[in-house]
Amino acid sequence: MKKTQVAILMGSDSDLPIMKEAAEILKEFGVKYTITVISAHRTPDRAFAFAKEAQSSGIKVIIAGAGGAAHLAGVIAGTSILPVIGVPMMSKTLSGIDSLYSTVQMPPGVPVATVAINGAKNAGILAIQILATSDKQLTKKIINYKKGLAESVLQKNIKLTKLGVNKYLAAMHK
Amino acid sequence: MKKTQVAILMGSDSDLPIMKEAAEILKEFGVKYTITVISAHRTPDRAFAFAKEAQSSGIKVIIAGAGGAAHLAGVIAGTSILPVIGVPMMSKTLSGIDSLYSTVQMPPGVPVATVAINGAKNAGILAIQILATSDKQLTKKIINYKKGLAESVLQKNIKLTKLGVNKYLAAMHK
Amino acid sequence: MKKTQVAILMGSDSDLPIMKEAAEILKEFGVKYTITVISAHRTPDRAFAFAKEAQSSGIKVIIAGAGGAAHLAGVIAGTSILPVIGVPMMSKTLSGIDSLYSTVQMPPGVPVATVAINGAKNAGILAIQILATSDKQLTKKIINYKKGLAESVLQKNIKLTKLGVNKYLAAMHK
Amino acid sequence: MKKTQVAILMGSDSDLPIMKEAAEILKEFGVKYTITVISAHRTPDRAFAFAKEAQSSGIKVIIAGAGGAAHLAGVIAGTSILPVIGVPMMSKTLSGIDSLYSTVQMPPGVPVATVAINGAKNAGILAIQILATSDKQLTKKIINYKKGLAESVLQKNIKLTKLGVNKYLAAMHK
Amino acid sequence: MKKTQVAILMGSDSDLPIMKEAAEILKEFGVKYTITVISAHRTPDRAFAFAKEAQSSGIKVIIAGAGGAAHLAGVIAGTSILPVIGVPMMSKTLSGIDSLYSTVQMPPGVPVATVAINGAKNAGILAIQILATSDKQLTKKIINYKKGLAESVLQKNIKLTKLGVNKYLAAMHK
Amino acid sequence: MKKTQVAILMGSDSDLPIMKEAAEILKEFGVKYTITVISAHRTPDRAFAFAKEAQSSGIKVIIAGAGGAAHLAGVIAGTSILPVIGVPMMSKTLSGIDSLYSTVQMPPGVPVATVAINGAKNAGILAIQILATSDKQLTKKIINYKKGLAESVLQKNIKLTKLGVNKYLAAMHK
Amino acid sequence: MKKTQVAILMGSDSDLPIMKEAAEILKEFGVKYTITVISAHRTPDRAFAFAKEAQSSGIKVIIAGAGGAAHLAGVIAGTSILPVIGVPMMSKTLSGIDSLYSTVQMPPGVPVATVAINGAKNAGILAIQILATSDKQLTKKIINYKKGLAESVLQKNIKLTKLGVNKYLAAMHK
Amino acid sequence: MKKTQVAILMGSDSDLPIMKEAAEILKEFGVKYTITVISAHRTPDRAFAFAKEAQSSGIKVIIAGAGGAAHLAGVIAGTSILPVIGVPMMSKTLSGIDSLYSTVQMPPGVPVATVAINGAKNAGILAIQILATSDKQLTKKIINYKKGLAESVLQKNIKLTKLGVNKYLAAMHK
Repeated sequence: MKKTQVAILMGSDSDLPIMKEAAEILKEFGVKYTITVISAHRTPDRAFAFAKEAQSSGIKVIIAGAGGAAHLAGVIAGTSILPVIGVPMMSKTLSGIDSLYSTVQMPPGVPVATVAINGAKNAGILAIQILATSDKQLTKKIINYKKGLAESVLQKNIKLTKLGVNKYLAAMHK
Repeated sequence: MKKTQVAILMGSDSDLPIMKEAAEILKEFGVKYTITVISAHRTPDRAFAFAKEAQSSGIKVIIAGAGGAAHLAGVIAGTSILPVIGVPMMSKTLSGIDSLYSTVQMPPGVPVATVAINGAKNAGILAIQILATSDKQLTKKIINYKKGLAESVLQKNIKLTKLGVNKYLAAMHK
Repeated sequence: MKKTQVAILMGSDSDLPIMKEAAEILKEFGVKYTITVISAHRTPDRAFAFAKEAQSSGIKVIIAGAGGAAHLAGVIAGTSILPVIGVPMMSKTLSGIDSLYSTVQMPPGVPVATVAINGAKNAGILAIQILATSDKQLTKKIINYKKGLAESVLQKNIKLTKLGVNKYLAAMHK
Repeated sequence: MKKTQVAILMGSDSDLPIMKEAAEILKEFGVKYTITVISAHRTPDRAFAFAKEAQSSGIKVIIAGAGGAAHLAGVIAGTSILPVIGVPMMSKTLSGIDSLYSTVQMPPGVPVATVAINGAKNAGILAIQILATSDKQLTKKIINYKKGLAESVLQKNIKLTKLGVNKYLAAMHK
Repeated sequence: MKKTQVAILMGSDSDLPIMKEAAEILKEFGVKYTITVISAHRTPDRAFAFAKEAQSSGIKVIIAGAGGAAHLAGVIAGTSILPVIGVPMMSKTLSGIDSLYSTVQMPPGVPVATVAINGAKNAGILAIQILATSDKQLTKKIINYKKGLAESVLQKNIKLTKLGVNKYLAAMHK
Repeated sequence: MKKTQVAILMGSDSDLPIMKEAAEILKEFGVKYTITVISAHRTPDRAFAFAKEAQSSGIKVIIAGAGGAAHLAGVIAGTSILPVIGVPMMSKTLSGIDSLYSTVQMPPGVPVATVAINGAKNAGILAIQILATSDKQLTKKIINYKKGLAESVLQKNIKLTKLGVNKYLAAMHK
Repeated sequence: MKKTQVAILMGSDSDLPIMKEAAEILKEFGVKYTITVISAHRTPDRAFAFAKEAQSSGIKVIIAGAGGAAHLAGVIAGTSILPVIGVPMMSKTLSGIDSLYSTVQMPPGVPVATVAINGAKNAGILAIQILATSDKQLTKKIINYKKGLAESVLQKNIKLTKLGVNKYLAAMHK
Repeated sequence: MKKTQVAILMGSDSDLPIMKEAAEILKEFGVKYTITVISAHRTPDRAFAFAKEAQSSGIKVIIAGAGGAAHLAGVIAGTSILPVIGVPMMSKTLSGIDSLYSTVQMPPGVPVATVAINGAKNAGILAIQILATSDKQLTKKIINYKKGLAESVLQKNIKLTKLGVNKYLAAMHK
């Protein structure tokens, strides 16, 4: 049986609709993960305990999503030596700029690998790319995934050429 | 002998030239304090341990200054029930906007009392105001302090009226 | 009978839907408060008079919410020696950045303890934390409150583990 | 003898090097003014008293410069019915964006006529334009002033054509 | 018959729902105005011609609202010697920050009296304040208007005290 | 004799140290240009007259640099049908964000081809690219210029490989 | 038969509702164009190949729209010597500021002619203006187009004068 | 002999003083790297070729630093399947906000692991953490490195306690 390699953390269950995109892409690539609500502010003990044990429990990569004064990724990165991927959540009042700055602007010595605001899917892909540095099968899967991205754009162009702009747009909204 | 009532924390000793202003105003008001470098990212264990014990050790107010992805105040506030005053430090790259957002935008349940960017002196005064809510002598001292602020502006105006703009400016730069 | 300890002010009654969250948490903790519409711009006399008398009338902490060029908290803090907690209201045009900057960037000598944009609930909690520095019963209540925050996250995780992501989300939106 | 028509206020004497530009242009146009340090936060009584009496004492226009959480112009405008011109001062940490937002984003009913960050000279000119709406001699002076602005640009072009770019630049730095 | 004293200009008829607030307050105060769509970019000839003739045609104050790269107020101010009040319109993409910066950041010599984003009502009030510097009847009206602002806040408080927060909010949404 | 094809305008002679970079690259490519100080705010008549006549006088492309509330490029573009390239100048107080927004955010119908803040050199290159769409010799020159850009980077790498990081840096600062 | 002169590229088919405005204005002016989805990130090979061949295939101007980390215009401009017009798309999280900065802030040597956020129509007009520098018929058409812009504003004013503000607004919303 | 595992790229040799910090930390950890100037805009062919071959040539992680419209990391990530770490360089005009947004805001499918503005050292550490997910020796080294970070803070505190604030500051500036 496969071991859990990625831990997905989020600061609040209101982040779940976005953070589940990380889970979905990991599932698509066959990477085993856990997904947990854990808050640097409301459950600091658990966050701290998790960070202390993550590496020895076999986890390879941690994904942490949080919004506003988004401290979760940074706090985990302060304790664990694993690569921590931070997902700044779009916030109600400042559109996620607050989340972005408080995730990415880490001091020397303690990096957080930050993706786009609400970029949970990319956090999942980045985790896969990291695992793929020592996993040939995952490497093949990503090569195929990238081909699929290109192919999908190509198909859209064939359709756009065939339908023209207006019919294409009409078809998009159906 | 008086007890230590305020703990001043800072994320890095590069914050000391600003954070010492909090110490100086506390000293001026006769409030006992400690001043410590403690990092949410580089010394998470100590930060966590400090926050756990602060209230029971007799501390009444915590002042925490940090820059960039400034997590120190928030992390302490996540564990301690004491009022935590956050000082966003002016940062090299984003002028402290990153520090401000990551200090002030705390989630419901865990406030940080945020002062201006580099506002360490005001953090000290706010700590005194908090202590003064149950300390009549401190209350008197702040009333006098406020009078002094007004008096100082008044003296400047007397001087400005006497000297005129240009001589006043010349005297400022001496 | 208990005395009023906290005064909640707001610049406009359009701030009431947010500012009532401060009132609700104070009520939950059994802290007596008043709630008033008072404007630094439209009722400067009353704002000024209020600030002059607040401390001697027994108030311990003032919470002031305002939006846009949000001067209310700063103006009150200029006159009263009480700790003033500022709540920057989310504004229509600039998402509350204007409110945040005009609340937090106070000059040396006159701090405003600023919480997050629309962070009225946290303003209430911060007021309680300040009162708790000299009130053992409030201290106990906050310790319990913090435990409740952690417990609530824990319950969510138990539910998330049990239901899985999709069923959990479905249950959230019911 | 002429009456004082414009009052120049500033929140701190550190604003004087900029605010004196308002004084200088008023002097150039022969408009009588006063210049005073008055703080909405440190001398609220005086600010309030000034605003109450300004109109009845014959003042026609008020210029108020302040930085950071710049409340001076707004507070004066809350009490006086005179046109208040706000000068947002460039601030150390946020380049004056805080000053700008807290000066310009006034609520309905209480306008502040805001000029550019550090735009004290323009505040003076705007005051003159306001006075000129009922003063034919000032009107003539401004018409001439505007001609002078155009003429000055014209002379620069003649010099630029004559010297060429490099010699012109060399002459600028002499 | 009264003469037109204020000209309200707007860059596009899409600004009309906001800019009409300037017209309404002028009407309330009995100040005669014109309201015109005129674009610095699409009708530069007319904008230029208008600016050239405004002062001699008896206009005393110009209000100009525009959005995005909002050049209308600045262009009028470049040609006319009248006080020009700029209203930065809230824009679709940048919430009016672009409009604000391109209205307020005028170079030395050519001020625009800028009000808040979408602050057309305040532009009208500021125009009245300017006219009132030489019109005693308008002065009286503004004094009354300011009293009305204060009275309105007072009435709201009486209602809030009587109804309590929840009933007050319920009444607001009716 | 060659005809002038590009007009370089700038709002103030303080823009000359940057704007001359446009002139220099045009000279390097053998494109004839004029360079003029012309202000939308201080010399509106001349700006307007220039824009009216530019196209019929044989000019093909206009480059306009201005800072702050940077209206020059937009005003020219409102009158002339020529492609107008806008250079937002870095400003003292807002780092050129004000210049950028007031240059680029033009309304439908009146584009300004905006380059980077202080990007005068690129404005020159863009003008050349535009002229090259109907000039084969210029096309060849740009192809060579692009090769030169690549070659220059290549040479730097050869040097970096040869010297190593530290010696390379030492050589840079000589 | 006419040759294709303009290539419209977009990073995603979600940009089509905006980017089609470029196509529509080109069609209105009788300029032949292609419209293609091509991504600097998902189809780099095709983007690279397109840029290599665009100029020799007869294309004169390239319009590229992209959002977020908007690299398409810059990547095309790095390879092709044609003028590249960049359209920063309004993004979900940062309102297009990210798109604007990553389109306009190009390094020396490689300009992108940037238009407003979502300014696809202006991109089309700018392309026409560029083509018109060597096409007299297009020149005539733009002169007429500009007249039409002015005429349209004029008609709106006639209607506004006739109907008054309220009826005009009512008619707008019909 | 060890294989090169990390490739450090930078858009310009002006980025070298910052980017060398990535090289230094890799060297400290005994990780073999290459360091190259390669520009998405000036040497697109080489950037493209590099990205195509990086993974098959044995590289495990790519670090890419660029400023302004910083496309390098994104362009490499579009072609290579390796994890790409982006370092937004502090820019002259916008303090690196432009670099940050154009590095981090990548579209779904193509992540860039972004670190702080000028965070080259953290980029190196992140690369090491990624390599450590399959390298036990590196894991041990990072555990020690993290202990060193904590120890260094501890030593500073011992010194601060011993010297006091003023002597500590004096010693810092020696």
